[in-house]
Amino acid sequence: MNNQWIISDNSLDIDSLLKNESIFNVSNGYIGIRGNFEEKYPKNFPTIRGSYINAFYEVEAIPYGEKAYAFPDTMQKIVNIGDAQNIDIIIDGEKFSLFQGTVNEFKRYLDMKHGYYKREIWWTSPKGKEMKINITRIASLSNLELFTIHYEVEKINFNGEVVIESSINGDVKNYTDENDPRLAASGANILNVNSITFENSVVQLTSQTKNSKEMVAITVKHHCNVDYDLTINKDGTSITGVYRLESGESVIEFTKYVVYTDSRRFKDVNSSGKEIVDNLSKKSFNELLKEQYDYLKEFWTTADIKIQGDENLQQGLRYNLFQLLQAVGKDSVSNITAKGLSGEGYEGHYFWDTEIYILPFFTLCQPKLARHLLEYRYKILDVARQRAKELGHKKGSAFSWRTITGEECSSYFPAGTAQYHINADIAYAYIQYYLVTEDMRFIKDFGAEVIFETARIWLEIGHFHHGLFKIDAVTGPDEYTAIVNNNYYTNVMAKYNLKWAVKIYDLLKNTDKETLHSLCKKINLEKEEIDLFHKAYINMYLPYDEDHKIDAQDDSFLSKELWDFKNTPKEKYPLLLNYHPLTIYRYQVLKQADTVLAHLLVEDESDFDTIKNSYDYYEKITTHDSSLSCAVYSIMASKIGYTHKAFNYFIETARLDLDDTHGNTKHGIHTANMGGTWMAIVYGFGGVRIKEDYVCLNPRLPEKWEELKFEFLYKGAIIQVDMRKNKTIIEVKTNYPIQLKIKDTIYKFSDNETVEV
Amino acid sequence: MNNQWIISDNSLDIDSLLKNESIFNVSNGYIGIRGNFEEKYPKNFPTIRGSYINAFYEVEAIPYGEKAYAFPDTMQKIVNIGDAQNIDIIIDGEKFSLFQGTVNEFKRYLDMKHGYYKREIWWTSPKGKEMKINITRIASLSNLELFTIHYEVEKINFNGEVVIESSINGDVKNYTDENDPRLAASGANILNVNSITFENSVVQLTSQTKNSKEMVAITVKHHCNVDYDLTINKDGTSITGVYRLESGESVIEFTKYVVYTDSRRFKDVNSSGKEIVDNLSKKSFNELLKEQYDYLKEFWTTADIKIQGDENLQQGLRYNLFQLLQAVGKDSVSNITAKGLSGEGYEGHYFWDTEIYILPFFTLCQPKLARHLLEYRYKILDVARQRAKELGHKKGSAFSWRTITGEECSSYFPAGTAQYHINADIAYAYIQYYLVTEDMRFIKDFGAEVIFETARIWLEIGHFHHGLFKIDAVTGPDEYTAIVNNNYYTNVMAKYNLKWAVKIYDLLKNTDKETLHSLCKKINLEKEEIDLFHKAYINMYLPYDEDHKIDAQDDSFLSKELWDFKNTPKEKYPLLLNYHPLTIYRYQVLKQADTVLAHLLVEDESDFDTIKNSYDYYEKITTHDSSLSCAVYSIMASKIGYTHKAFNYFIETARLDLDDTHGNTKHGIHTANMGGTWMAIVYGFGGVRIKEDYVCLNPRLPEKWEELKFEFLYKGAIIQVDMRKNKTIIEVKTNYPIQLKIKDTIYKFSDNETVEV
Repeated sequence: MNNQWIISDNSLDIDSLLKNESIFNVSNGYIGIRGNFEEKYPKNFPTIRGSYINAFYEVEAIPYGEKAYAFPDTMQKIVNIGDAQNIDIIIDGEKFSLFQGTVNEFKRYLDMKHGYYKREIWWTSPKGKEMKINITRIASLSNLELFTIHYEVEKINFNGEVVIESSINGDVKNYTDENDPRLAASGANILNVNSITFENSVVQLTSQTKNSKEMVAITVKHHCNVDYDLTINKDGTSITGVYRLESGESVIEFTKYVVYTDSRRFKDVNSSGKEIVDNLSKKSFNELLKEQYDYLKEFWTTADIKIQGDENLQQGLRYNLFQLLQAVGKDSVSNITAKGLSGEGYEGHYFWDTEIYILPFFTLCQPKLARHLLEYRYKILDVARQRAKELGHKKGSAFSWRTITGEECSSYFPAGTAQYHINADIAYAYIQYYLVTEDMRFIKDFGAEVIFETARIWLEIGHFHHGLFKIDAVTGPDEYTAIVNNNYYTNVMAKYNLKWAVKIYDLLKNTDKETLHSLCKKINLEKEEIDLFHKAYINMYLPYDEDHKIDAQDDSFLSKELWDFKNTPKEKYPLLLNYHPLTIYRYQVLKQADTVLAHLLVEDESDFDTIKNSYDYYEKITTHDSSLSCAVYSIMASKIGYTHKAFNYFIETARLDLDDTHGNTKHGIHTANMGGTWMAIVYGFGGVRIKEDYVCLNPRLPEKWEELKFEFLYKGAIIQVDMRKNKTIIEVKTNYPIQLKIKDTIYKFSDNETVEV
Repeated sequence: MNNQWIISDNSLDIDSLLKNESIFNVSNGYIGIRGNFEEKYPKNFPTIRGSYINAFYEVEAIPYGEKAYAFPDTMQKIVNIGDAQNIDIIIDGEKFSLFQGTVNEFKRYLDMKHGYYKREIWWTSPKGKEMKINITRIASLSNLELFTIHYEVEKINFNGEVVIESSINGDVKNYTDENDPRLAASGANILNVNSITFENSVVQLTSQTKNSKEMVAITVKHHCNVDYDLTINKDGTSITGVYRLESGESVIEFTKYVVYTDSRRFKDVNSSGKEIVDNLSKKSFNELLKEQYDYLKEFWTTADIKIQGDENLQQGLRYNLFQLLQAVGKDSVSNITAKGLSGEGYEGHYFWDTEIYILPFFTLCQPKLARHLLEYRYKILDVARQRAKELGHKKGSAFSWRTITGEECSSYFPAGTAQYHINADIAYAYIQYYLVTEDMRFIKDFGAEVIFETARIWLEIGHFHHGLFKIDAVTGPDEYTAIVNNNYYTNVMAKYNLKWAVKIYDLLKNTDKETLHSLCKKINLEKEEIDLFHKAYINMYLPYDEDHKIDAQDDSFLSKELWDFKNTPKEKYPLLLNYHPLTIYRYQVLKQADTVLAHLLVEDESDFDTIKNSYDYYEKITTHDSSLSCAVYSIMASKIGYTHKAFNYFIETARLDLDDTHGNTKHGIHTANMGGTWMAIVYGFGGVRIKEDYVCLNPRLPEKWEELKFEFLYKGAIIQVDMRKNKTIIEVKTNYPIQLKIKDTIYKFSDNETVEV
């Protein structure tokens, strides 16, 4: 097996198992199933046994000790939707388990080229019966509702009856942790089972959430290559099919087709579920494997990045990109959760992570998927407008800090609602998408409205002071400093937002007055507002510190005391778990890149020296307690020329989950970091930036590598970058004029062409 | 009846009843009983039927949506301890009620000179039986455990049997409001009844709180002037004595002696309760009335303030002082709650209100009671030291924002824990007490340790920056601005705290090395720390704004946008109930005096013009949404010479509860405002300030008044101030040399003497 396409972990110890439930999740953006064992662990082993549907949620009241005005009353959370993973194999009364009998061989791996996850087992039962079992799982990328488990059982030294028990269990709970009073309090029992049916070989279990009243049906059909005798056992919350298999064949193949349909996408979850399972179960498992491979082949064509010189990093990188594909919502109802569909961490919420850390990859490599992510924000724009009103603003949108359907789910506003920058981040992602795709239709249908409404919020929360436009009482990306005035990141991103609102307005005025007119009418946008946008961005105040010659994180940050790193022992990190927020806020200490991130996103506002000085200053006081930090520091280190640092930070990101470096992978993978890994390659080592008229490239190959190859799409063209020790070959496939700025030179392409620099 | 000593309200409409339950509470600092009707209202009438013991509390978990490090896990709340108010009168099967039959006459009043609350009723039953009923209540100021209800029933037109049913009900709840999810969630059922006994004419009901496991016994004995036949009815949670009274006498007197004993003060609440009730019930009701009068006579001798020219204000003022006496804890286990013992608002917590708004009255008029309040803080000093550690500080004390036994009970830290100024406020109160009493013993036993420990916290949270000592990430008194750097109030109060820590250290060093040595050893205080205190206060940064020539509320306040008062309709006040905190924090808008309060407490740090300019600036943007605001603005208006303003603000404070101007008196009276009323007179119109070597007086009689007389104690001397239209007569009774600075002249007194100015 080629290690670089394979993630493998054959350990059976307790801690690895829990982590690997996340690592080996199979997901497709709609459904996600953790890598639990079909036959389960022994009882005392910790497990988070979960299956999830992206954007399928329950609503719960948020408790408060002291509640203030416009604090959200409720929060949403992703739901463990019922367990269809259960399959037991029983031979002569002995139930197969990896923790009984003798495990002669055990392999467990994810194949990222073919898109399946497999366990290969050679087992001898306590009574001496020997068999080989191969279990393969697919969350189908071509048929989003479908999850399939395929069993191949080879009898080695016996020829008796094999019994397979396959069930759906509706008596499931969301994960709780006794040591976390918040989790315990919030009540884990979310679903009521409404109905369980068995008709025409189809098993169906339908449940409903208690408060949000959303429905989900799990519909199952089984295939088997041998004849069997079937008994169905039902109780109020589960259904089990007991398959007694004819003893003739020595190799048994058994496939479980599981179809998930939910009421957010389907009118009638029951009939849709049955229809879909009937259709899809006509495909053999091999056909499904083929479809999966074909889908991935296309994906990897653009998405793959090849590193010569480090197999471990190559593997980590592919894993991260594979997980991004697995996690990304493929309709515009859903988005990418902080943990993908691999766990319940962060309650299945969507954050600004999507726009700033994840969308660059999709925008440049999978623009169709990027569109869905952007459309999702448009779909919740009305909720964001409503939220702005609740917060006391007359106009504009205030996108929620964490949410599923748009409503604010954060109960801690200093590091939630106060992060107004999310509005600029969303606008930024729309603009970058437009610059990469030139998709004007999309701007007209969705983008312009989002960009105008987000621009408006800056006029609501900002004000002119001595001629400068200032923005008070916000929190920037760095959550170790809260509720400050003139956060550099926020202001510079707001400036970009406002500037582009004016640009888009002018562009529409010059090219499509009618669309502009009807949009302005719809959202009641006057020319005077656009003039104010212009005045605000022209006069936007960007705090700068003359002493250090750096952009200041905010008005007061640099006058605070420096955190006493010397006397902070290792076990006190992450700081937020060991110090009161107020104590953290009092010091110059960063959880993650803030001004340094601004210098990545909007680099033209500062000169190189300021960017370098800022990096030097802030790096010293950044803890990287957030998984969003290292990728950004890697990219900016690349830009500045700190090649060792760039490489070391990159290593931190590339295998964060595979090596569980943050110790919490069991709750799910870190999708934003995965996007960050891609950015560290393409934006960092490749030096890619999206500018108004061209894409920049600035290749800087890490010393330890022989070669780095990546590819992206720009205005329909394919750009292939092949970075080697002493040169970089850039191959452009286009039939449309585009411009690339490679190092300091602008190259024009209108045909297929290769440049070597 | 003299209106100026009497509070009367004969209304029986629903809304007045609820408010008057607070207004007519009878309390003595240990127990407090709301002015509920013994015979109750009709069922559909809203009521908060409550009895409380100061500092008797339950503990409950605080729920959080998102909890951070060192957020308090639990909060404490005062407990509705069981209802001994119930008394019913039944004649010929008809139960007395003011809402049935005919009320020929009804008077209800509080006599503040004699210290009782009385209802006088002339009633005809539906069947025509006529009687007069006088019901008098006392919460004994001389016997703190004792609450007494005295009935005088005169039969007018009948001579039949009268039945009196008197009960104790242990099935009580704390108040909840269905519209307030916080209250509803917190669970109102706190007490379990442990035992109910009837022995030797003594009824006793003992209960225990569910979590804090504190015990309370209610022990009752009855006296009656006629013979009776007694039946006792018990169930699991209540006990009723049914007294069938001989029909001979036409006037019946019936006294209920209720004794409360709790486990925070008594080892054995049962035996103590019985012993106390046996002793105290030997006193006739008239004797108790006499004791009460004697106690109050002494109190009023110093405390009373006489206004010629406005009976309403005179009444309001006396009510406020009377309530302060009723509310103040008379042991050092308890303090003064925000609502006294008149209701459950603010959960019976103690705030900085005590030190800054209430202690001035007690320090200058009732220094013995002031000592208890100060000793309370000393008793919880260990908890405050522990809290400082939790917050990440190496040394010092961090007194909790709201508490009963010292533990932080505030779950909203931006307007709670962030108000570090409470530490300086406590130190300030100790220092003022010392300056007034010269009680060096008290400083050695308690004060020095508190002043050192509070001083230490400033070194923990402050730092030197360009040579200046700065304090970041705190919230000042104004809760409409949170988590700021260099709040003027906090810094100037910290400076006072630090300066006096040095002074006290030097004083002890020069006068009592031994005490100093053992104290330093106890709290591990080094001379180097004292030097650092000195360096910090000498270099304390006090933000000043050159443009406006005012002291700046904090580093960034004046650069914020002004709140749009013009477009804020009346119903949007108080702002905190109508705007998200973040939106409020973004603007220049004050809930209450902040810098202006600093100018009252530490006036010598600023010149007169700065104080005046600051007043002018901040007044315009202060909403007075807090009841702590108007008194301070009144005092400072007096100082500046804004006599009309001073008077108008004073009016706001003097009758806040009597006229229910904040609309929430039903939840309890506003004790801090009551202290503020006294300050508005003595500090405002009298111009009193406590300085290091003397007391200042600066009389400014309001135009509308003929005369204002008040009195206070200073270093054992009695100072009587008689302010008239054209002169002020100051009579000093002393046999010890003291100094007064009257207007601009320092007068020395060492004998009884009168000065006219």
